[in-house]
Parts: sequence; C-alpha cells; structure tokens
Amino acid sequence: MNVVSTVDPRDGRPRETHLRETSDPELESAVGQASSATEWLAGLGRHGRAGMLDEIAASLESHRADLVATAEGETGLGHPRLDFELTRAIIQFRMFGDVLRDGGYVEAAIDHAAETPLGPAPDVRRMLVPLGPVAVFGASNFPFAFSVAGGDTASALAAGCPVIVKAHPSHPLTSQASGEAIAAAVRRLGGPDGVVAVVHGQDAGLALVRHPAVRAAALTGSIGAARAIQTAIDERPYPIPFYGELSSVNPIVVLPAAATERGSQIAEGLFASFTGSGGQLCTKPGLAFIPSDPAGDELVEVLRDRVASAGGTVLLNERIRDAFVEAEARLERAGARVSARPDVASAPGFTVAPALLEIDISRLSAEIAEECFGPLLVVVRYGEAADLDRALAVVPPSLTGSIHTGTHDDRAAVRRLADQFAARAGRIVFDGYPTGVRVSWAQHHGGPWPSTNSLYTSVGATATRRFLRPLAWQDAPDWILPEELRDGSGEIPRRVDGRLEPGDPAARHGNATGGVVTS
Amino acid sequence: MNVVSTVDPRDGRPRETHLRETSDPELESAVGQASSATEWLAGLGRHGRAGMLDEIAASLESHRADLVATAEGETGLGHPRLDFELTRAIIQFRMFGDVLRDGGYVEAAIDHAAETPLGPAPDVRRMLVPLGPVAVFGASNFPFAFSVAGGDTASALAAGCPVIVKAHPSHPLTSQASGEAIAAAVRRLGGPDGVVAVVHGQDAGLALVRHPAVRAAALTGSIGAARAIQTAIDERPYPIPFYGELSSVNPIVVLPAAATERGSQIAEGLFASFTGSGGQLCTKPGLAFIPSDPAGDELVEVLRDRVASAGGTVLLNERIRDAFVEAEARLERAGARVSARPDVASAPGFTVAPALLEIDISRLSAEIAEECFGPLLVVVRYGEAADLDRALAVVPPSLTGSIHTGTHDDRAAVRRLADQFAARAGRIVFDGYPTGVRVSWAQHHGGPWPSTNSLYTSVGATATRRFLRPLAWQDAPDWILPEELRDGSGEIPRRVDGRLEPGDPAARHGNATGGVVTS
Repeated sequence: MNVVSTVDPRDGRPRETHLRETSDPELESAVGQASSATEWLAGLGRHGRAGMLDEIAASLESHRADLVATAEGETGLGHPRLDFELTRAIIQFRMFGDVLRDGGYVEAAIDHAAETPLGPAPDVRRMLVPLGPVAVFGASNFPFAFSVAGGDTASALAAGCPVIVKAHPSHPLTSQASGEAIAAAVRRLGGPDGVVAVVHGQDAGLALVRHPAVRAAALTGSIGAARAIQTAIDERPYPIPFYGELSSVNPIVVLPAAATERGSQIAEGLFASFTGSGGQLCTKPGLAFIPSDPAGDELVEVLRDRVASAGGTVLLNERIRDAFVEAEARLERAGARVSARPDVASAPGFTVAPALLEIDISRLSAEIAEECFGPLLVVVRYGEAADLDRALAVVPPSLTGSIHTGTHDDRAAVRRLADQFAARAGRIVFDGYPTGVRVSWAQHHGGPWPSTNSLYTSVGATATRRFLRPLAWQDAPDWILPEELRDGSGEIPRRVDGRLEPGDPAARHGNATGGVVTS
Repeated sequence: MNVVSTVDPRDGRPRETHLRETSDPELESAVGQASSATEWLAGLGRHGRAGMLDEIAASLESHRADLVATAEGETGLGHPRLDFELTRAIIQFRMFGDVLRDGGYVEAAIDHAAETPLGPAPDVRRMLVPLGPVAVFGASNFPFAFSVAGGDTASALAAGCPVIVKAHPSHPLTSQASGEAIAAAVRRLGGPDGVVAVVHGQDAGLALVRHPAVRAAALTGSIGAARAIQTAIDERPYPIPFYGELSSVNPIVVLPAAATERGSQIAEGLFASFTGSGGQLCTKPGLAFIPSDPAGDELVEVLRDRVASAGGTVLLNERIRDAFVEAEARLERAGARVSARPDVASAPGFTVAPALLEIDISRLSAEIAEECFGPLLVVVRYGEAADLDRALAVVPPSLTGSIHTGTHDDRAAVRRLADQFAARAGRIVFDGYPTGVRVSWAQHHGGPWPSTNSLYTSVGATATRRFLRPLAWQDAPDWILPEELRDGSGEIPRRVDGRLEPGDPAARHGNATGGVVTS
C-alpha cells in the first residue's frame, strides 16, 4: 500500500505521513460500517442528530489550534484565513442543527382520505427520508468548509446519511484530523464507527462511487474530476445522483456611473476579491468589465498600483501552480496584455505573482473567458452597453454575476444585465463581490453548467435535500408513521390537505424520528 | 418525410394519418418558438399561469368527446377508463393552478443583512426559477394523464417552462388533438405559438434532448427508452437533468391474518388491480405474496376463478403484446406454473388472456421478479416470515410496496415489512392496492432505481420542482427583485431569516411575476 505524502506548498517539499492509501478491504469495511451507521442516525431522530451536529461543532472547536496549524502546513493558506474558515465550518454544523430542529426540511405533507371528483381517495402522507451512505470528495481550496468537516458532510449527516469522505491529497493530515475530531464527538454520544469515515487515494475514491451501498456523491472540484467520477458511476448497475460544483469565472460588470462615483473603492474591493485566499475560491471574480472612459481608466490605475505592489501568493499545490502559469500564458497568447504583475521570481515553494491582465471587449473570446484558478483578473474594457450584451453571451455560465451600479443608473439597463445574469448564473450580486459566501438559510451555491451539474446547491439550508428522497405512506396506521406525519403532531411545518401549517416551534421538544432506515 | 401511422389495437391494422414525422427544420422551429415563449410565460406571472392552466383544463373539457373517441381508437382502452383518465388530466392542470396561487413552490427565502459571527453579512434572497424549454416523452399507457396533456406538461408549464412533447407512437392522433386543445387555450389568452408543441418520430425525440436550448427531459417509459435518451443527452456539451419513471413490479404481501379475515375481498381487489387497464399501469402489482395455509388457498382459489372466467384484454400495441407473450413464457421457463388463463385464442388485434401464475417462495428468482407489463400476476406462496424477508430482497426496488395486515397482527412484524419497503419503494400501501394513484399535494410517484432514476416525483405538487433551479439575489435593490422576494409582500409562504412565514392567502390577488426569464 502506498504511503500518503503531504507537501508544504511554502517550500514545495513532499514529506511522508503515517497514513496509507485506503486498500480495497479497508474501503469495504468503511462502507459496511457506514451502512450499519444509517440505522443509528435514523434512531437518533431529528433532535438527536441536531445534538450530534452541535457536539461535532464543539469537538472541532476544541481541536482548533491543532487543526489550523496542520492545515497551514499543508495548504499555505494563512492562519487568519484558516481560523476564519474553521469558524465557518463550525457554524455550518450548527446551522444544520437548526434546520433539523425546525423540521421543515422533511417537507411533510398529509392529504387525508377524501371524496374527490375521481372518487374516494386514500390517505396519503409524504416526507423526505435519507438515501443511505454518501461519498463526499474534499476540495483542495477549503481544507475545512468544503472537506471532511465541510458543508457536504454537515448536510448529509443532517439528512441522516453516513458520510465517507475521500480526502483531498493537498491536505491529508488535516482531513484525517478533522475526521478524528468528528469521530470523537460521535463516540461521546455512544455512536458506532462509520458515521463519518475518511479514505485516501484516487483509486479508493473511484471504488467508493462504484460501491453498491453508496447512494450519492458530492464533489467540489474540477470538471476533470467530475468526469472521472461520473464515468465510475456509469459503471454501476444502477445510477446514483452526483452533485458537482465545478468551474466558475464570476464576471463583474462595473457600470459607468459606478466607476465615476466610487472607482477607487471598487478597485480596492476587486483587488481584495480576486487575490484573497490566493484567488483560489470558486467565487473568485475572473473577469471585470470596466468602462473605457476616464473614470474607468482611474479605476484600473488604482487596481494596477495595488497589484504591482502586492507580494507573492503561495498556491495550494504544484498542479494548481502549474495550471496557473499555463493559464496566464494562454491568456497572453489569446491577446490579453499584462497590466500589472509584481516580480516574485525568487520565491520558494508554489509561490506565484498576482496578475492583472487587460483586453478590449472586441477581443473577448471563449479562451479569455475560461476560468483561471488563482490570483488573476482579466479587466475587459468596454464602450457600449450593446458590446457588453454580446460579450456576456461568450462568458460561460457561473456561480455568480455581479453588477456595480450608479445612483441614477437607468433601471432598464440594470434590469437587462440582471436578466442576463439570471439566465447564466446562480447568484446575482449588486454593488458587491462574489467572494465571502454568506452561510445562511437563503444562501445558494450553484448555477447553470459548468458552475454546477445539478439543480441543487451545496451551501444554504437546502443543501440537505441532495441526500434525501421522498417516501409516501398510504392508509398507514398511525403507530407506523414517523412522528412528523402523525395527526395532531403540529411541531413542524407541514402541508395538510394542501394548506401550509407553519408548525409550532414551542412544541419542538419531542423525540421525532425524522428519518426512516433506508438501507 | 415519413407518414405517421396509427394502429387500432382492437384489429391490429395500421392506418395512415395526416401527420408526418417531424423534420429537423420543424424541430428547430419548435424549439425556437419554445425559447421565445419562455418570456411570455414568465410575464404571465404565477397568477397568470394559474389562469392559463385553468383555461387549458377548460379547453380539454370542451374537447372531451373527440379526445376520448380518438384515444379509444388508438389505445383500445375502454371509454370509461379514458373518460376517467381525461378527468384526471384536467384535475392535474387545475391542481398545479392551485400550486401556483399558493406560491410556496418557489421556496422563497430571505436573509436580511446582519451582523454574524463571521462579520457583516449581505442581504441574500433566493427562489426557484424556470429552467427553460423542456422535453417530455409521452407514455404509451396513459394517452392523457402521462402524455401531451399529462402531469409532466402541467407541472412544467406551472414552473414556467415551455414544453415540447414527443408523441408516443401508440396514439399520435390523440397526442396531436391534445396539443391542439392546449394551443387553443393559449391562443385565447393571446399567447404565442410554442408554449406547448408536439413532435412525432423517434429521431425527433432524440434530436430534441440533444438540442442546446432544451433544459430538461422527462419520460414515463421503459428502461430501454431511458437508456437511449440518456445516451443522446450524454452527447451534449453540457448535461441536462433527465427524469425517468421506468419499471416497477409493485409487490404485495398478504399477512396470514389478513388472508383469514378477508381473503375473498383481497382476491377481488387483487384481480381488479392487476387486470384493470389491461394491467398496463406503472403501479400494477406483479407479485403477490400469499400465505401457504388454508386461508391462503381459499384466497388463491377465488382469484383463480375470477381470472378463469375473465375475457381477453386488448393491449396497447404489437410490441407490448409480443413482450407480454414472451414474459409469460419466460416466467414459465423460470418455474412459475400457470394457475389460471382463460382461452381467448381466436381474439382479434392485440388481445391477450389475463394470466395468474404461481410459484413457491423457495423458487423465487430475479427472473420471476422482473416486471411483466400487462394483465399477469405471479402469486408467491410463503410459509415463514423469514422466507418473506429473504424473498423481498430479491425483488427489485419499486414505485410501491403493499402490505395487507390483520386486525391483531404483531406490530413488530408489520414494521419489519414496512421498513423493507421503505428501503425499496417510493410508496407503502396498507390494506390496499397500488393502482389508482391519488392526484393530490402529498402524492408521490417515484422510488429507488429502476422505478425512477431521480429523487423527484412525477405526480403530486412537488413534480414542479423538476423544472426549476434556485437563483439568489445579493443586496439587490427592491425594484429589481421578483415580487415574491420583496419585503412586506407577505402573500406566499417564505422563510425569512430562517423562520417560516406561512403567508397570507387573503393577500393572494397580486400580479406576482413568480418567474424570471432564464433563457
């Protein structure tokens, strides 16, 4: 079995770890334990699982110093960013606890038996139930919030699904330590092994999604990784849902009045947004459309100064560094000119210089509009609104589209832009930046392909639904129904005979099962 | 271009129609019109679209006599069944009108800007918006309720998506007439061509799902058809969601006490359920587990008598007739013995005899447990509950699983069965039959593969969600938000800052847009 190595991107040197790539028998055992854990998770009920998520949050908190230090050595992301990210991950677990206590996520619906125009109709009740064990692929760029301790794990556990995470090779030790912190919390609650497991190695990841007991897969990663996983899923005798969050160029349009009213401020915001975390965020703006006028010139000048005086950035791994260097060269070949790039030639490890490129809108092509992961922004200078319309149609669909407006902008023009983004993005940001995704109930993180491959979202309360399926009971005796579907149990929001009843939060103290053993 | 033929299954003779298979340019035109119609549907708003669905329902009602007569000549399904089915289809359009007026289906959520543990957070608002034009594949067995005027069409239109239906070759004239009745309703409202279109021919169906402007596909049909459609979708540069409702054997378990208490009644119910509509229902019970005891013997005896004295059944088309004859032979080869089958040898057209087969539970195999479309039931005689447990694991997952219980049955035994069905079915029916699917808010029509390939359902209020995707607005000015997401517009159910507000039905009279132009 192969030893798992880790690389500190600040010096670029690989080091052996105590970890081994997961063997076939180990994988089989992990999936077997996960299958058994399904029943335990169902037995906990909604309130019990909410308590488990709180316990996991507390356990992560108690391991904060170690986790952040380990992640720093493996990712080169700075301490403040990693400390913040771990807080975010902890908040995600707590938020899904709230989602469980609220109970609306099961979408309980009751239609009582009735005489209908089609004759006597039976009593039908429906709610969402867990799929069973799910596979999650950790992301390179979020060692906590989109990895073992990430939103996919939190939302799957909330749903009642055990999780097997394939650790990202950029941070195996962080992944392992996160898994251990979660396992400690589960053990404190008397839970079995297998509620959350971590596996290592590409072969293990593909074997995982081929395994008959695995019921869904989620990835935050590249289109290439998504293709490999989908190909493995296609080898199964029956398909499973696959959720991928893949590629996004996140265009920003600055309207002329916005550039006039607050050009420098926008330049500062843009700089922070495209260079933060080394530009290695799914929502990093990759294209900024700036007017070709004096205010636009000033904005770009401020941006250029900020980039020129910036230091180097350590990227996550060698592959990402190499891809960044290649993408930069590709953009130059495609006609973008380097507008600012500080000299960091002698920097160690996987360090690169942030780069500001510029191109006229008439030369914008699909090649220019491709995502470049890392601290690079292409400024596209535009003259007419009509040019903008045409250009945005060349930009691939994204997670986000942002519009900076002026105080007195023509509403029709703003609406036209918003409509374009509505068709080609998952979130429309006004007078702001797409990075710094708020973690909250209404949040959403998805968009038309290639930003994601599904109608679902990996952030926000509805992320849970990816791991649930509907189940209906017809004319069931009361005692066999889950508590959520019994008459008179008005704790949670339910649709009863077509009418939404919001539920009584004061009644939310029962021991509802909130789940059914489905595997 | 090929002439489209229709066959009256009662005599088996093909007749030419005035219809032609849809050519590539015609398909291009239909998709182009559908794309343009997206904006009109969005402009109607939720209440306008609800009115449109009511208008379509009324138009179908006004064409009732013609539609039913046409369907009778193409499907051989009797007048009462077709009349009933059309009523069901009309009710489906009206139900989705109610879903639109309620507005909860957009899942509106508002998180106001706030100070959070992660710092100041922006205002984020989310709702579901239409995908754009969708392809629907009509089913052979429901010329109305799962075809042009079916639930997929109704739920897609409710979502705001224009629909292009590929007519099933078993009923091209019914499909065309249904499409014309719908188009007449749209015209009365001043709508454009292309809100609903009908295309003919297998090539047109595959070209449809390959077309870049088509954003989702839905099928009620065979696994083979699903594979062909998925293969065509895989040729696209980007994937689209595909919803298939495919194959289901719908096991029924009769517990010993149930057989003792009401054996004859269950025999009558089973007979009606497996022979109704010629056994050509997705939810037809294909396997009935009956106890090997005197009460079970009596039940089977009643069933045998009913089958032996039954007449022949006209099946929908030659392919289905041939498949039925083959499946019967396969079951006999696999060890099932014919228990009752009336003699209808000289019947015309695609007529077959209903068949009752029997086998002991010890001989139940995957081959026996395969779906047989048509009026055939395999009775599986069982002795011990443990045998039942093992046998049910051999039965492929289904849309439904049914349990007939006795008054004093051991609850643990019933629960164990219910848990098995919970893991392997989409709807658990108690003391009843899976056919006669109620059309209502809580209803659900789906299950683990191969019953469906998705987490969604093609019946019930949530069918709409298949054609919607989430879209979020961050810090958007009030005037640009859809009415559903504006502050103070408390008409529809919304989650505001994590709390569900049920909305004020009395306020439901506005002209909410309920949609955004997304293509």
